[in-house]
Amino acid sequence: MSFTTSEYKERIRKTKERMMQKGIDVLLITDPANINYLSGYDGWSFYVHQMLVVIIDEEQPMWIGRGMDANAAKVTTWLYRDHIIPYPDDYIHSDTKHPMDFVAGFLKQIGQENRSIGVEMENYYFTAKSYEQLKKGLPNANLQDATLLVNWVRLIKSDAEIEYMKRAAVIAEKAMQAGIELIQEGVRECDVAAKIFYTQITGTEEFGGDYPAIVPLLPSGEKTSTPHLTWTDERYKDGDAVILELAGCYKRYHSPLARTVQIGKPKEEMETLSKVAVEGINACLEMIRPGIAAEEIEETWRKTIEKSGFVKESRLGYSMGCNYPPDWGEHTVSIRKGDKTILQPNMTFHLIPGLWLDKYGFEVSESIRITESGCETFAKMPRDLTLKEFV
Amino acid sequence: MSFTTSEYKERIRKTKERMMQKGIDVLLITDPANINYLSGYDGWSFYVHQMLVVIIDEEQPMWIGRGMDANAAKVTTWLYRDHIIPYPDDYIHSDTKHPMDFVAGFLKQIGQENRSIGVEMENYYFTAKSYEQLKKGLPNANLQDATLLVNWVRLIKSDAEIEYMKRAAVIAEKAMQAGIELIQEGVRECDVAAKIFYTQITGTEEFGGDYPAIVPLLPSGEKTSTPHLTWTDERYKDGDAVILELAGCYKRYHSPLARTVQIGKPKEEMETLSKVAVEGINACLEMIRPGIAAEEIEETWRKTIEKSGFVKESRLGYSMGCNYPPDWGEHTVSIRKGDKTILQPNMTFHLIPGLWLDKYGFEVSESIRITESGCETFAKMPRDLTLKEFV
Repeated sequence: MSFTTSEYKERIRKTKERMMQKGIDVLLITDPANINYLSGYDGWSFYVHQMLVVIIDEEQPMWIGRGMDANAAKVTTWLYRDHIIPYPDDYIHSDTKHPMDFVAGFLKQIGQENRSIGVEMENYYFTAKSYEQLKKGLPNANLQDATLLVNWVRLIKSDAEIEYMKRAAVIAEKAMQAGIELIQEGVRECDVAAKIFYTQITGTEEFGGDYPAIVPLLPSGEKTSTPHLTWTDERYKDGDAVILELAGCYKRYHSPLARTVQIGKPKEEMETLSKVAVEGINACLEMIRPGIAAEEIEETWRKTIEKSGFVKESRLGYSMGCNYPPDWGEHTVSIRKGDKTILQPNMTFHLIPGLWLDKYGFEVSESIRITESGCETFAKMPRDLTLKEFV
Repeated sequence: MSFTTSEYKERIRKTKERMMQKGIDVLLITDPANINYLSGYDGWSFYVHQMLVVIIDEEQPMWIGRGMDANAAKVTTWLYRDHIIPYPDDYIHSDTKHPMDFVAGFLKQIGQENRSIGVEMENYYFTAKSYEQLKKGLPNANLQDATLLVNWVRLIKSDAEIEYMKRAAVIAEKAMQAGIELIQEGVRECDVAAKIFYTQITGTEEFGGDYPAIVPLLPSGEKTSTPHLTWTDERYKDGDAVILELAGCYKRYHSPLARTVQIGKPKEEMETLSKVAVEGINACLEMIRPGIAAEEIEETWRKTIEKSGFVKESRLGYSMGCNYPPDWGEHTVSIRKGDKTILQPNMTFHLIPGLWLDKYGFEVSESIRITESGCETFAKMPRDLTLKEFV
């Protein structure tokens, strides 16, 4: 297990506190990061329906999942064996049976069918059909939206979690350096991606890497005008800029990091853009401290870059930590106008002031921890546009 | 683009044919593989809401997505620019705005709000909340479940798709060989995973690899009793068995492959189990041909292994091809009792007779194509338990 049983129990206690505030008796958790956070469960089985059931008056949660994954629950969680409930394989990708039918039947069997039941309405792993089937199967339950309930518990990290994110940052730095070193005119994009992957997973001599929730994003040339392209097997050309956005991951905890590389001489507008973005992120890192609101960071950023005539429509960052594909973000705090969350020590954010214009773009980012008096970046690397000479 | 515009148009034609059969006027596609299949769109942006809208009486579909991803749609799809509809960034992870509100408003604006509208109720990327918001925003629409409508169109592959899967298989073989070569007593699991990743992405000199929808699965020792564990940074021990399940991927098309490696001397029960599984898969590969039903394959498997007293509860395989995380399966045909789908040439399956017992397990799998007269495996590698001597 990644944490002590007492840390898992404390997380359950905090979750139940929020359940009580919302009048939720039974919480059905489908977000794999929330399942992992509360139980330790870790396996690539979230592509089929699975769930952690937290009952307000039961000490331990219950894991419900596909039969073949029950042994994974035994290996990776702190739950007693009788809290691991497998469902039969003919519920998988069937047009007549749905795993939520099994869940509804199970909740009836243990006398929970008349209670107030929370579900994660806005989560990849709780489909529209899941909700419909649960409603059918539990007509007397009071189904409530409990989206992000556990995510908010995850917001402030324990020291053990921070330690994992620091390890993830060591890996992120190594992966970024490996990518930057290899990028050169004539090199294939896929070979750079491969090198990054290798470094992310092999980790260091002391500890290995886990798979990040997002693959390396590597737009180049004109494609730097958009952030979420991956790679091709084309070769870099002189004059190309390359954005690298990647994370290190250790036991499901992430430290994302973005930098931009220039092959050969940068265009003047790229030099300007990069200076503006770096000045903007530096200004933010200077002012971030506990007690301010998330939106104040964005205000500092906005006022810094508008002096140079730049505007960024998209948010400046978000809370992150433990996660599974397809996203390392926690979906709670966003660093943008209107988010009044007050920063507290051991909150962790990905601060990503990307600027994507019509024909080119620039990204620089830092994963940060709020400290007692300010903030610290997990990784330590120069932020400027990285210049790679011609071969 | 990965395919010719005429191939995309033919896919749209087939999709509309199914829409007509089901009385659907407007199809809202949220499955990233279906979006890619019909439009070419390719980017790691599926962690936010995005959609392809197919309207029965419009020639081209429309892409709706986050503002910063619109340039990715311009770069990767065959759609006209005015068919690429960005939504503002404040819809992202907001507790007051939902991207489906934008979609509903857009559909009203183009006069589609009274029509029969199909949605993918059972898909990772169409949340319960998405459905609720669409119902609210489109009170006069007739919302219908169109889950798997496009997935079924994807079932029989074109020659171009088969060519991509063959390339994916070349990569899968290389990745499997790299993993097997490195596995040895004393080697860390993460270093084997890293080598596999590197090989999957670097591909060959002729073509690079794309990221598979699932990371390498590498349970070892007692953990071979369950299939979906990934890796740790622990070192292999003498006597460990290691299951490797991985895929090669080329332009989103997969060729999955599983093998089992034994470090040192195998236990007798492992030798028995592996022989039974290999005899079973060989019997299936002998009898698979167009015209038989999917369930007949499972029957052959079942009868072959029951002679040795083995039973497998889980399904034997499934249709696969183009996909995105978290699954490479197509969620249409399952090779199991009750699936009466008649096999046709250029259907492609992952045939995976894994046997997971209480304390150990064995996997061997093949990705196959139904040919005119039988079937062929995409990869060509020995299937027996691979024996690795002590160092």
